[in-house]
Amino acid sequence: MHGAVLYGPRDIRFQDCEIPKIIEPTDAVIRIAATCVCGADLWPYRGLQPINGPTPMGHEYCGVVEVVGSAVKSMKPGQFVIGSFATSDNTCPHCQYGYQSSCMHREFMTRAQAPLLRVPLADGTLVPTPGVPADDLVPSLLTTSDVLGTGWFAADAANVKPGSIVVVVGDGAVGLLGVLSARRMGAERIIAMSRHESRQKLAREFGATDIVTERGEKGVARIKELTHGIGADSVLECVGTTESMMQAVNSTRPGGYVGYVGVPHGVSLDGEQLFFSHVHLHGGPAPVRRYLPELIDLVWNKKINPGKVFDLTLPLDQVAEGYRAMDERRAIKTLLYPNGKK
Amino acid sequence: MHGAVLYGPRDIRFQDCEIPKIIEPTDAVIRIAATCVCGADLWPYRGLQPINGPTPMGHEYCGVVEVVGSAVKSMKPGQFVIGSFATSDNTCPHCQYGYQSSCMHREFMTRAQAPLLRVPLADGTLVPTPGVPADDLVPSLLTTSDVLGTGWFAADAANVKPGSIVVVVGDGAVGLLGVLSARRMGAERIIAMSRHESRQKLAREFGATDIVTERGEKGVARIKELTHGIGADSVLECVGTTESMMQAVNSTRPGGYVGYVGVPHGVSLDGEQLFFSHVHLHGGPAPVRRYLPELIDLVWNKKINPGKVFDLTLPLDQVAEGYRAMDERRAIKTLLYPNGKK
Repeated sequence: MHGAVLYGPRDIRFQDCEIPKIIEPTDAVIRIAATCVCGADLWPYRGLQPINGPTPMGHEYCGVVEVVGSAVKSMKPGQFVIGSFATSDNTCPHCQYGYQSSCMHREFMTRAQAPLLRVPLADGTLVPTPGVPADDLVPSLLTTSDVLGTGWFAADAANVKPGSIVVVVGDGAVGLLGVLSARRMGAERIIAMSRHESRQKLAREFGATDIVTERGEKGVARIKELTHGIGADSVLECVGTTESMMQAVNSTRPGGYVGYVGVPHGVSLDGEQLFFSHVHLHGGPAPVRRYLPELIDLVWNKKINPGKVFDLTLPLDQVAEGYRAMDERRAIKTLLYPNGKK
Repeated sequence: MHGAVLYGPRDIRFQDCEIPKIIEPTDAVIRIAATCVCGADLWPYRGLQPINGPTPMGHEYCGVVEVVGSAVKSMKPGQFVIGSFATSDNTCPHCQYGYQSSCMHREFMTRAQAPLLRVPLADGTLVPTPGVPADDLVPSLLTTSDVLGTGWFAADAANVKPGSIVVVVGDGAVGLLGVLSARRMGAERIIAMSRHESRQKLAREFGATDIVTERGEKGVARIKELTHGIGADSVLECVGTTESMMQAVNSTRPGGYVGYVGVPHGVSLDGEQLFFSHVHLHGGPAPVRRYLPELIDLVWNKKINPGKVFDLTLPLDQVAEGYRAMDERRAIKTLLYPNGKK
């Protein structure tokens, strides 16, 4: 079988890979229905995060169970399942507190940009859908595996409630689905910070009420202006730089909440600034497993349509072009079908 | 009148100061019953926080209203009152959200180590007690002005609930009263990190169930050992250094809470470490005004005895010795009486 492997900066190859097999009795192997390229994949793709030799890529996935290990109880071959980018036993104390992405037996998934995928701890990681979905539902279902789950966690960590005034920093796919999540949680006003017309348009479709194009101090001043000098109740940080973190902190009112999900790269926070900002700060790798049942349900019943975030669809063998388009910001997010373009 | 003025590192002078008067109609002037030296006063005292010329000191106070401005409505001369180290109008949006120490009209108090004190925004800053207290109640009432209010906020920001497993980083007066606060909020287990026998003893009196003397990585390992490898639900950070912040973050379980109230000096937080820790972080200057009615009530009805934290009592004219004793860690906290030792 062929899968995506990163060799170095901007060098993704679709090449022969080992066919995954059951190794532990708690494993499952699934046949991928769809996978995609994550904003986080762009860090190593751009050479901004070191890799140790050729690295198989991909951690967002959904598909049909092909085979299960002898200890797997909650699913069987033929069922359609979705899992998190982080494996979890879903029984350890961290899992029971709802932080499955800090599971004591966590592994970060990779190798999902391929036709077949081994998923460890299948019972604790994968969630079956009510049936095998129609093709048009697959993109939205796929988003629950990471990008929607992460935007949802950002909104949850930022304490979005009915009536909240929300700011979203970052107009990538996670930020855009953060807008959708905040809308779904009842936010009254959602201010998306974006300079790109196509992203602004999608942000509005997902529920943004205002767009702010300014950044840095001017961006903060604009948020203050839009909130009667008070600041936002909840700010979703969906980038992962020091600038975006401070943009988020400084846009929040004292006592407000920052939910941060952008994987930090070189971020350093000044303790004194944070202290006097009086904000609540919470984030990290999204505990997608906690949200999967609810998010699958919302998608299955067509209450939300997060799959709109994919604006480029390619057959998996064109994965290199999928990365390139996102790197050059020609695409927001690339959807990949192992069985060819649908 | 004489008051305490800091001239430079370890140079506190008790010298002639201007007698405070009503300047704004919203002011009150109070006759100080007792004041004290704050751990935060030691930063400039030690030369670790710059001052611009001679600086009048003191921001913890209680006493009897001497005179009020024409706009003051909620108190009159003769009433015993307690106020926060930060003034507040208690009506602006930040105040209404409970963050009075970020009031849009906030001033940080100073000049309280003196017999008389002008308090701006008296209606929003001061809270009258049910009557003029007996002398033996004054030390505990004084603590509500900052040190208890700050320890209480640390516990509240760290989400301490009945049954919580709590760690307190810092065995200064704030940390010790953080122990008392956590106990009062129903914590099941309170682990105090302390190496000083007298402070360990007081921590146990205030409700600590365990003492950990190790610091740094060894301290974290010990906390993990005491919590079955999980980490604490709630950690109170009461120091204000990068080391103490990381001690707190690393002692907290994923999804747990760090409440930080140590005024940060040179603190820089690594974004990636914070991200993968999965903790909630909240803190800042304690919104003491929010807690004053409840804390005064607890002290007035002798449910708590936070005044025990004072282990040195001096007449105000010996204020320099009060600083020295705390600087040299001979005293946990110095109580000062303008009218001589009681």
